[in-house]
Amino acid sequence: MALTEIDTPALLIDLDAYERNIIRMQSFADRAGLALRPHAKTHKCAVIARQQMAMGAVGVCCQKVSEAEALAFAGVSDIFVSNEIVGAAKLARLAALARLVRIRVCVDDAANVDDLARAAQRQGVEIDVLVEMDVGAGRCGVLTVDEVESLARRIETRPALRFKGIQAYHGAAQHVRDYHQRSNAVDNAAARASSAKDHLHRQGIECDVITGAGTGTYPFEAQSGVFTELQCGSYVFMDADYGRNLNRSGEPFSDYANSLFVLTTVMSKNRPGLAVVDAGLKAVSVDSGLPLVHGHHQIQYVAASDEHGQLDTSGAEDAVDIGSSLTLIPGHCDPTVNLYDWFVAYRGLRVVELWPIVARGAVR
Amino acid sequence: MALTEIDTPALLIDLDAYERNIIRMQSFADRAGLALRPHAKTHKCAVIARQQMAMGAVGVCCQKVSEAEALAFAGVSDIFVSNEIVGAAKLARLAALARLVRIRVCVDDAANVDDLARAAQRQGVEIDVLVEMDVGAGRCGVLTVDEVESLARRIETRPALRFKGIQAYHGAAQHVRDYHQRSNAVDNAAARASSAKDHLHRQGIECDVITGAGTGTYPFEAQSGVFTELQCGSYVFMDADYGRNLNRSGEPFSDYANSLFVLTTVMSKNRPGLAVVDAGLKAVSVDSGLPLVHGHHQIQYVAASDEHGQLDTSGAEDAVDIGSSLTLIPGHCDPTVNLYDWFVAYRGLRVVELWPIVARGAVR
Repeated sequence: MALTEIDTPALLIDLDAYERNIIRMQSFADRAGLALRPHAKTHKCAVIARQQMAMGAVGVCCQKVSEAEALAFAGVSDIFVSNEIVGAAKLARLAALARLVRIRVCVDDAANVDDLARAAQRQGVEIDVLVEMDVGAGRCGVLTVDEVESLARRIETRPALRFKGIQAYHGAAQHVRDYHQRSNAVDNAAARASSAKDHLHRQGIECDVITGAGTGTYPFEAQSGVFTELQCGSYVFMDADYGRNLNRSGEPFSDYANSLFVLTTVMSKNRPGLAVVDAGLKAVSVDSGLPLVHGHHQIQYVAASDEHGQLDTSGAEDAVDIGSSLTLIPGHCDPTVNLYDWFVAYRGLRVVELWPIVARGAVR
Repeated sequence: MALTEIDTPALLIDLDAYERNIIRMQSFADRAGLALRPHAKTHKCAVIARQQMAMGAVGVCCQKVSEAEALAFAGVSDIFVSNEIVGAAKLARLAALARLVRIRVCVDDAANVDDLARAAQRQGVEIDVLVEMDVGAGRCGVLTVDEVESLARRIETRPALRFKGIQAYHGAAQHVRDYHQRSNAVDNAAARASSAKDHLHRQGIECDVITGAGTGTYPFEAQSGVFTELQCGSYVFMDADYGRNLNRSGEPFSDYANSLFVLTTVMSKNRPGLAVVDAGLKAVSVDSGLPLVHGHHQIQYVAASDEHGQLDTSGAEDAVDIGSSLTLIPGHCDPTVNLYDWFVAYRGLRVVELWPIVARGAVR
């Protein structure tokens, strides 16, 4: 099937770019001697998770129990829920999943450790647990080494739990545009993780795993010598927002190619300089900025309403007749993926496969 | 089942508020002697569409052929696709649907009229067609009365099409905060629609239908004497953004009650003044502003990431222990609904029914 036969809006993966991205990140991790555990919240797709693991990833991350279920039931064998899981219902599901696949989870609260231990014990499973530290993001995670120690000890006293180490993910650093500011933020995060690890070591508690990093910062985590595992996710697709990060020389970050696009059709055109496409904010996420029009730098996507996108076409009037199709680079890949049920994977101009987004909508 | 047993995040409908909203809008339309054709892009739910029609609505609107299909296949009998439908594949599906239910659609382009006529003829159906005018939104629709006449004549020459009138929806006016500015915008829209209707009348072409209006402006369309049909959608749920509109006396618009909520759980709390909930931007749309915390005016939802929401709790520290649940008023109801597969309809503190969001993700 030709790409031009696909009805729009549709979510496309350019397989050539996607495969190069996977190889590049895995090669980086291999050279650095670090485990790569890509974040599956980006793609929510078991096909992609299994391809990442086939290339060398040790497993994947996800954020929700329902995401982990969807991936596990589709054959993904090692899943780290890199988030706190609260409430008896969710913990029971998480523990049940640990009977099927290898499961890891984060904690940042003592009572939550107890609840998790009870759920694991009921299911007769052992679960690997990481203590999350807030290393600068100001979101989840404990703040002091004493709190890390206290939670680690609590985990170690529960037979159904195994203390594995520390999560030190600096989410807020991922989109700091300036290279040196980004680097400094991660240096601070690494120093905090390192001091916690050293403190635990002095108490006789070892950290097998220090995990963190994203597509915006992973070289810094890698060179810190502190981290053992990288969680990058967006590198498989890239998006307009990551494209606004700057590298050391002040150029836009372009180590990974855009492989994710929204195919859209021009549906109305009644005045010079304006075209309306059929992809609005239910087809492409706008939380991190509007999409870019791929291959048409003279055309700007200037406004999104629910089902319409407005293009300023004054720079390239000829390219946008009614019925013509364009591809958009999403502003933010993760929530855009969450709007679709399928990826259309293509190579050149041919559709190769449809990949189900099994964890679409998996918010629980 | 008690509401407290629902796992989070979940999308709730407060049935008491929802039913009052439906009755109030239908009563308004009845008193004004206008047809009410609520926009189903808001709720994407056949249960709600059928309830609206049972209360007196003449049918519903939607924006996409796939939305119309989902609703038609779930028993909704009269659907206006209040949008331009472009491309042979979509037009063939639209025409096929007209064999099953009553279908209406908009056009703003001559070649599109021809394509639509061909599709309808192939299916042996007659389709009601409205010409969309741009009455101020600057998006879809033709600009001049001559263009309206030209398209109306073109429609009338096609045996498979019936010219029904004009769509004059002023989307951009819906969230103009000031009452008088909003009123003026709609007065201008009504004047343009009226002049087109009069122009057609002088040419011997009658408009049965002049359709438009939204929750932000419908009293103005109603009092214009020009419109025959109201398309309001958001009134069933309301949202934080519509709540920022001002009424005539400068007070917030509160004619309709919030009936749509996202139930969320506090999942992390490690520093004074901050709590993290499990509903981020994959659980509540942030395109029109962040959600509000229902019933807790001292607590602000201050930042959304993919799967986390950060609350400033410095005004009400006691209300937000880990594991406690809160309800959020979405910033924008339509794209929030599009993130979920089910509504949890409740009354008081009891779950009454689960209603499938059959057109969730229906972007094509």
